[in-house]
Amino acid sequence: MNETISLLQSHRSIRKFMKDQVTEEQLDAIISAAQHASTSSNMQAYSVIGITDKELRSELAKLAGNQVYVEESPVFLVWCADLYRWEQAAKRHYEGEMPSTTENFIIGTVDTALAAQNAAVAAESLGLGIVYIGGIRNQPERVSELLQLPKHVYPVFGMCIGVPDQSPLERPRLPRKAVYFENSYKPQSIDSAIEAYDETLSTYMKARTSGKAATTWSQAMATKAGPVRLHMRSFLEKQGFNLE
Amino acid sequence: MNETISLLQSHRSIRKFMKDQVTEEQLDAIISAAQHASTSSNMQAYSVIGITDKELRSELAKLAGNQVYVEESPVFLVWCADLYRWEQAAKRHYEGEMPSTTENFIIGTVDTALAAQNAAVAAESLGLGIVYIGGIRNQPERVSELLQLPKHVYPVFGMCIGVPDQSPLERPRLPRKAVYFENSYKPQSIDSAIEAYDETLSTYMKARTSGKAATTWSQAMATKAGPVRLHMRSFLEKQGFNLE
Repeated sequence: MNETISLLQSHRSIRKFMKDQVTEEQLDAIISAAQHASTSSNMQAYSVIGITDKELRSELAKLAGNQVYVEESPVFLVWCADLYRWEQAAKRHYEGEMPSTTENFIIGTVDTALAAQNAAVAAESLGLGIVYIGGIRNQPERVSELLQLPKHVYPVFGMCIGVPDQSPLERPRLPRKAVYFENSYKPQSIDSAIEAYDETLSTYMKARTSGKAATTWSQAMATKAGPVRLHMRSFLEKQGFNLE
Repeated sequence: MNETISLLQSHRSIRKFMKDQVTEEQLDAIISAAQHASTSSNMQAYSVIGITDKELRSELAKLAGNQVYVEESPVFLVWCADLYRWEQAAKRHYEGEMPSTTENFIIGTVDTALAAQNAAVAAESLGLGIVYIGGIRNQPERVSELLQLPKHVYPVFGMCIGVPDQSPLERPRLPRKAVYFENSYKPQSIDSAIEAYDETLSTYMKARTSGKAATTWSQAMATKAGPVRLHMRSFLEKQGFNLE
């Protein structure tokens, strides 16, 4: 349809990178694209920390689950929801108490994701590859200490960026009818879509693993059903997010 | 630098649209771009509801704060964080209790924002304009009833899309040094950045309002400091998000 849409439609997560550096000019363009994303009432409630220190990177890679690409990617960014900077600004003219609300938590989390996705698209438009690292939430308290995050800032995810050294198959997505609805949610269209997608994904897994695995989507989703990262609530409270 | 980056850097929210329709082909490309965004462990934990019914649109516009563009934009989408579909899939192979965690709430909210931002970029690449509508969280319980959202689905924001009938000034963003840090958060760089940005934004506001307003950023942020949308926590609990 056009180059940008082709780019968006051809996204694959990249987990193996060439040694080539990402240039300062490229990183500038990536961060600038992030800064231009939409933001709730211009709050710009996110910050991004580029990890250039080798020891720190190594430590973060361990905390995120020992993923080698977190340690070795040319660029590693930690994207943080940030209500601290907004509070510093607001306090100049507002004397009341500033409640730590679920609403502001949502604003910070959404602003962070919008900015990061612009960064991802910018990077891919430059021929670079990216992968989001949710593992940064495995031990968020330790990550926050290492990055010296003030209260009301929390690490939402990391992002590796670099020149791709792999060309993975494009992973098929859910049928559109399971994701897009007209005028109201249609739970009755979910079951058949899951069944169709289970087949699609099983075929994809076979191709990707040269026949070794044929996991369906619902099987993969079941592995995520147990208690995962149950520390997030208490971590967020310690970090000043009371979710009132 | 390239066309996609120029596009990302020239984003402005559009709140006035021509009568021209968004074609089915354009909407397909927009939704397809959304579906190709990164997603946590392939959970695809979001859904999007296109509002084509006139009465429903009118009702949602009222609930979102009587913004005329919500009623009149050619396309209006409600982006929802969706853990329901994932649960339907996982239950096929998992018999334990599925906890309603803060972690999964974050996954759903982030997945929704990543998909929506891809949609926004795709729309803009087609010459369309967009604006996010946080006002959909003004009365989220009523919105959820109208859209028949099952438990574990919540409306994160709306989005208007159409052919722009205005060309607003580009709103300057915070200085990069207030948003991007190397290796650790630098609270000491915030104050001077706020002062510089207060001046920049005041100049921008004067230009935008033909001299009628000269609001600084910190003044604007102070107006957001009081209690806003305090219902979100209890709404989310009713909607099945326990934030454990």
